[in-house]
Amino acid sequence: MANSILPAAVRIVEMGPRDGLQNEKQLVSTDTKLELVRRLERAGLKAIETTSFVSPKWVPQMGDNAELLPRVLAAAAPGVAYPVLTPNLKGFEAALAAGAREVAVFGAASESFSQKNINCSIAKSLERFRPVTEAAHAAGVRVRGYVSCVVGCPYEGAVAPQAVADVAATLLEMGCYEVSLGDTIGVGTPAGIRRMLEAVAKRVPVVKLAGHYHDTYGMAVANVFASLEMGVAVFDASVGGLGGCPYAAGASGNVATEDVVWLMNGLGIDTGIDLEALVDTAAWISAQLGREPASRVARAVLAKRAKTACA
Amino acid sequence: MANSILPAAVRIVEMGPRDGLQNEKQLVSTDTKLELVRRLERAGLKAIETTSFVSPKWVPQMGDNAELLPRVLAAAAPGVAYPVLTPNLKGFEAALAAGAREVAVFGAASESFSQKNINCSIAKSLERFRPVTEAAHAAGVRVRGYVSCVVGCPYEGAVAPQAVADVAATLLEMGCYEVSLGDTIGVGTPAGIRRMLEAVAKRVPVVKLAGHYHDTYGMAVANVFASLEMGVAVFDASVGGLGGCPYAAGASGNVATEDVVWLMNGLGIDTGIDLEALVDTAAWISAQLGREPASRVARAVLAKRAKTACA
Repeated sequence: MANSILPAAVRIVEMGPRDGLQNEKQLVSTDTKLELVRRLERAGLKAIETTSFVSPKWVPQMGDNAELLPRVLAAAAPGVAYPVLTPNLKGFEAALAAGAREVAVFGAASESFSQKNINCSIAKSLERFRPVTEAAHAAGVRVRGYVSCVVGCPYEGAVAPQAVADVAATLLEMGCYEVSLGDTIGVGTPAGIRRMLEAVAKRVPVVKLAGHYHDTYGMAVANVFASLEMGVAVFDASVGGLGGCPYAAGASGNVATEDVVWLMNGLGIDTGIDLEALVDTAAWISAQLGREPASRVARAVLAKRAKTACA
Repeated sequence: MANSILPAAVRIVEMGPRDGLQNEKQLVSTDTKLELVRRLERAGLKAIETTSFVSPKWVPQMGDNAELLPRVLAAAAPGVAYPVLTPNLKGFEAALAAGAREVAVFGAASESFSQKNINCSIAKSLERFRPVTEAAHAAGVRVRGYVSCVVGCPYEGAVAPQAVADVAATLLEMGCYEVSLGDTIGVGTPAGIRRMLEAVAKRVPVVKLAGHYHDTYGMAVANVFASLEMGVAVFDASVGGLGGCPYAAGASGNVATEDVVWLMNGLGIDTGIDLEALVDTAAWISAQLGREPASRVARAVLAKRAKTACA
């Protein structure tokens, strides 16, 4: 509970180019995505999920993956990871051909979500990833794991912490170097997040866990804070709060990277990220999409700048 | 840190009609304000700050205070308090004439803010409240105290926790039954909020403290959670997140009552408030003001309802 037990530094994994843009209706150009990645690098992000290797039939926005990733990697910034999502072996092979050095696989903690989303059971979906992780390890490619619906599911409501622990443990056992726990629909509050983390931490060391919290109901920053108090030191976030909720159009998506950085700055926790450059990036990508940033920090910082500029 | 030490119930003091509307440029009709109060009562709010008795020259939006308060009180809901802000004895006398049974006084924890805002020192401003609290007690009127700028000030930056403790202790000594601690510009994060609360709690029992956190930088829900862990069980909030930040136009204001209720529901903490009715109220007042609710919970619940209605 005391500040002294909080981590001294956290790693933020930027989701903007992938999770942030994937549900965007208007097609974002490859040039714009590339520029987004470059701006994120300059702001100090050290892990930027760049795209996903899924069928363009399902996610047309990621249809330029085979063009984007090589362009990103051609001028990769030193020490920056560019993971890409790979739902199956075919996707993995395409990612590898495009030069991927890190991929991500995922499993749901909710049976109904797994069935409705990918039309198979959780167990079956995890088995499908086994050849991916094996091929990845054979190729020296790092694999990150995601668990979705870690506290609630749009179809079945509350999700048992034990179900999350089972999926997380399986992903670890398959060789994922880290497991990111996703409150996909943003319904969690600190109590539920902690119960879930307690269950998972019995199976997966907390240093291998990341928090991936959506801000649909405005709880994400509080959930990040509660997770910090449990020792979690890696968080996924999306610049400008990009990425609405596909289950509730008009609602918020990923927690904004700026909001997480503001929190960490206030807690004296190092992120290595330049908040002003990040706000610039949020303003820039939001303008590209024709809207205001969803992030409160971006809005407040921009409003303050505008006021100072007028004064 | 464990859930078991969190309070079983919290009281939410609704700020919408006063703090929420006072900076609103368009004049809101007395009928609309009255309807807002009635809807808040029906949603289960037991304390609704109704207006302020300040000069209409300074706050034109509250210029109908002498008409609004009697209309509210004429059909007061049982067990509901309707505090009004009274900056001086003249305001108190007008409030008393309008039937007020509870008033609120305030002091800044920042000298610069006090000077720039009310053109006098903190000490002087508190002395001005002494006749108000004395007159109030003589008339059997309850007095609530506010401290503003409890973690940061727009003019001098960080505010010393000890300065907050001094003002809070003085307000308590003057007879305030409760002291509400305001992060007026929303810059606080849980670590700073806790340092401040620790200092204040040495002078004022924690059961007499309330948290009043603005969501300018998206930290308010996390700050409420951190305060709960310190034993604070009263929070100020504003339906729909009404009330922008006068220091940064376009930024968020008060934490939304819906967001606080969602948090408490998730933590298993009783508020006595009906979330659906509250979201209806947020949607209604936001529509009156010609905008979307600023609250993430309101937006998500409304988006979900719209989706269900179409399905």
